[in-house]
Amino acid sequence: KINSDRLWDSLMEMAKIGGTEKGGCKRLALTDLDKQGRELYIKWAEEAGCSVKVDAIGNIMCTRPGEDMSLAPVGTGSHLDTQPTGGKFDGVFGVLAGLEVVRSLNDQNIKTKHPVEISVWTNEEGSRFAPAMMGSGVVSGRFGLQEILDTTDVDGLRLGDELERIGFAGETPVTGRKFHAFFETHIEQGPYLEAENKQIGVVTGGQGQRWYNATLLGRESHAGTTPMHLRCDALLASTQLIQKVEDIAKAHAPGCGTVGFMQVVPNSRNTIPGKIEMSIDLRHPLDEELSAMDKALSEAIAEIESATGVAIQLDPFWYYEPIHFDENCVNAVRKAANDLGYSNMDIIAGAGHDACYVSDFAPTSMIFTPCLNGISHNEIESTTQEECEAGCSVLLNAIVTMAEQ
Amino acid sequence: KINSDRLWDSLMEMAKIGGTEKGGCKRLALTDLDKQGRELYIKWAEEAGCSVKVDAIGNIMCTRPGEDMSLAPVGTGSHLDTQPTGGKFDGVFGVLAGLEVVRSLNDQNIKTKHPVEISVWTNEEGSRFAPAMMGSGVVSGRFGLQEILDTTDVDGLRLGDELERIGFAGETPVTGRKFHAFFETHIEQGPYLEAENKQIGVVTGGQGQRWYNATLLGRESHAGTTPMHLRCDALLASTQLIQKVEDIAKAHAPGCGTVGFMQVVPNSRNTIPGKIEMSIDLRHPLDEELSAMDKALSEAIAEIESATGVAIQLDPFWYYEPIHFDENCVNAVRKAANDLGYSNMDIIAGAGHDACYVSDFAPTSMIFTPCLNGISHNEIESTTQEECEAGCSVLLNAIVTMAEQ
Ligand SMILES: NC(=O)NCCC(=O)O
Ligand SMILES: NC(=O)NCCC(=O)O
Repeated sequence: KINSDRLWDSLMEMAKIGGTEKGGCKRLALTDLDKQGRELYIKWAEEAGCSVKVDAIGNIMCTRPGEDMSLAPVGTGSHLDTQPTGGKFDGVFGVLAGLEVVRSLNDQNIKTKHPVEISVWTNEEGSRFAPAMMGSGVVSGRFGLQEILDTTDVDGLRLGDELERIGFAGETPVTGRKFHAFFETHIEQGPYLEAENKQIGVVTGGQGQRWYNATLLGRESHAGTTPMHLRCDALLASTQLIQKVEDIAKAHAPGCGTVGFMQVVPNSRNTIPGKIEMSIDLRHPLDEELSAMDKALSEAIAEIESATGVAIQLDPFWYYEPIHFDENCVNAVRKAANDLGYSNMDIIAGAGHDACYVSDFAPTSMIFTPCLNGISHNEIESTTQEECEAGCSVLLNAIVTMAEQ
Repeated sequence: KINSDRLWDSLMEMAKIGGTEKGGCKRLALTDLDKQGRELYIKWAEEAGCSVKVDAIGNIMCTRPGEDMSLAPVGTGSHLDTQPTGGKFDGVFGVLAGLEVVRSLNDQNIKTKHPVEISVWTNEEGSRFAPAMMGSGVVSGRFGLQEILDTTDVDGLRLGDELERIGFAGETPVTGRKFHAFFETHIEQGPYLEAENKQIGVVTGGQGQRWYNATLLGRESHAGTTPMHLRCDALLASTQLIQKVEDIAKAHAPGCGTVGFMQVVPNSRNTIPGKIEMSIDLRHPLDEELSAMDKALSEAIAEIESATGVAIQLDPFWYYEPIHFDENCVNAVRKAANDLGYSNMDIIAGAGHDACYVSDFAPTSMIFTPCLNGISHNEIESTTQEECEAGCSVLLNAIVTMAEQ
């Protein structure tokens, strides 16, 4: 039903924008490369007959008209931004699968009652600007528009300025968005579908997530003249905190705990570090377990502070509880997979996705496809044309079903 | 004998160049601020009647003529570059104490048999470009000129290009320098003089030093979807290495071990770190102990590699054995301190100093003065006018004695 070669070719074409030596993709949110990716996508969507709008946070909406334009669209989509060491599929697949659905509907002259709308959500990765899923978060009302526009990256550049700079500070308001239903297709980014040898993951929800910034304050002094017992080494204290994050996650299986970002100040090899800025990312499918992890983190910090004399400030700047997707939408995905003969299993998303925030205001679910060795956020991220074809076919089927109801 | 107010005023004047909010000084080697500091110093030296030369590695030599210009000069001096979180005295004091000696000799119309030469050595700190003591190291023949010019900073800027840019790639060759004797005045940067309540440290030698770059290679993957037991987290492995560096130093008292520099790749909060670049700095006054520390480090790395699956490359790019200063020069410093009635003690330098490399080719020693709480490489580094006066008076006395012999 869909054109698998065309989908694959588009994926490979888009991957050239920010393509890396190791075969991955580095297209950070609101950089020149993000702009190029967005522009290529808009060109394709217009060629496929879609009307295009951009909202005040830079989300792109491409609409294929329905027979009854007074009805809310059936939505799909994902994001075009990547991690610094990103792959060719994370996010992009969900956007281009949406485009392929529209192209296939055109090929087969299929009219739908509801319009079909593909969204590209701004800064889903949360890597250059934190937190993640900003575009969908603003539309859902979880984040204030102004607060998000005022976010800065590690070099102090303001999100709102970067959005203007790349020409994607649009005029459509971020409020009042409606979907009859919303489906996001995404690679799993984890090992479970592959381990269970399933083609499709029917995503029933997403795990909860807590993001923190931690600042550790020690005292700079000379690496050669300061006796070991007189030091107040912020980096040494941070090693205890990093290990505690690991321990807390392991003690709350299947929770995850990660320190991915860290800056050492003054970062001079013969000065004992006086200050560390680091991120902490805790996740769990159960909210009570996530709370327990949060509590264990605070306790660990108090212990490390008193053991080391290094002061630790913890800023818990982002939290969202585990998400449960809409039963009808979940069933639509499961039915589509079964009807098409794809092996499938229910699964919980380990990553955050725009669909998690869309589900605040619209019936939503997700379609997962396997990725090689469960590896994502890595340039070697890999999946096959057949796996993409399966995911996109399920998406087409689910959209068509919902767009008639 | 010296003009203490003038010395202090010059220190405070120089500290304005790169002065920081917390009262420190950030004047990294071969930056625009380093250029400004060098130019101010040259102006002062010329006003004091010195002739000025710059060599191919940017060392500045300011000479007050002696009665017999065929004789090798008595040398003094230190460096004008600072740490990123540097103080107002580290290095600068040794340069301006040299200038104050010349000014005082002028005031009192004292002629010396040997010329007196003040050196400003390029990039002593080793912070922006590693290793440290580059200017004196090139002159001593420890480093090749070309190799040092080709060193790059963390942004990939080449030392030779930066030297040209600030106008300090001079014409005087780096070879053939001679000193009848060399004395460097410096704040102790450690706690011992203060603890023993002594005004002057008679520096008999410097501890040995080993610098390494370590690269840890794990595997990037997603912070939310990668189960804890499937991770290969380079940052987590680095915490073991940092703790081992600490343990090794403590097991070899009074050795020191420090990780001051670290970069996380890709440094994205929701990607498990795939690569860590970090520095390791090991020091000990006894060479056999320093070797034992080096061996313990290699063993620890092998253990961490096999325990974590993270590959660790260790590049031992700098080593110098403990330094023993010239007995005559050491005695000259001790005698000057005693003659002037300053309480004093013998001491070993914990930091590397240009004098350590000068002692390769000339009779050398150093004069230490206390600093508040033994803290250096910190913006709050502090010392008093009286302490500076004592150090500079001992320097004057030692120089005059040697310049007559
Ligand atoms: N899908 C995805 O990688 N999202 C990034 C946000 C997260 O860290 O989960
Ligand atoms: N004096 C001083 O701080 N030198 C820097 C080189 C070192 O790390 O010892």
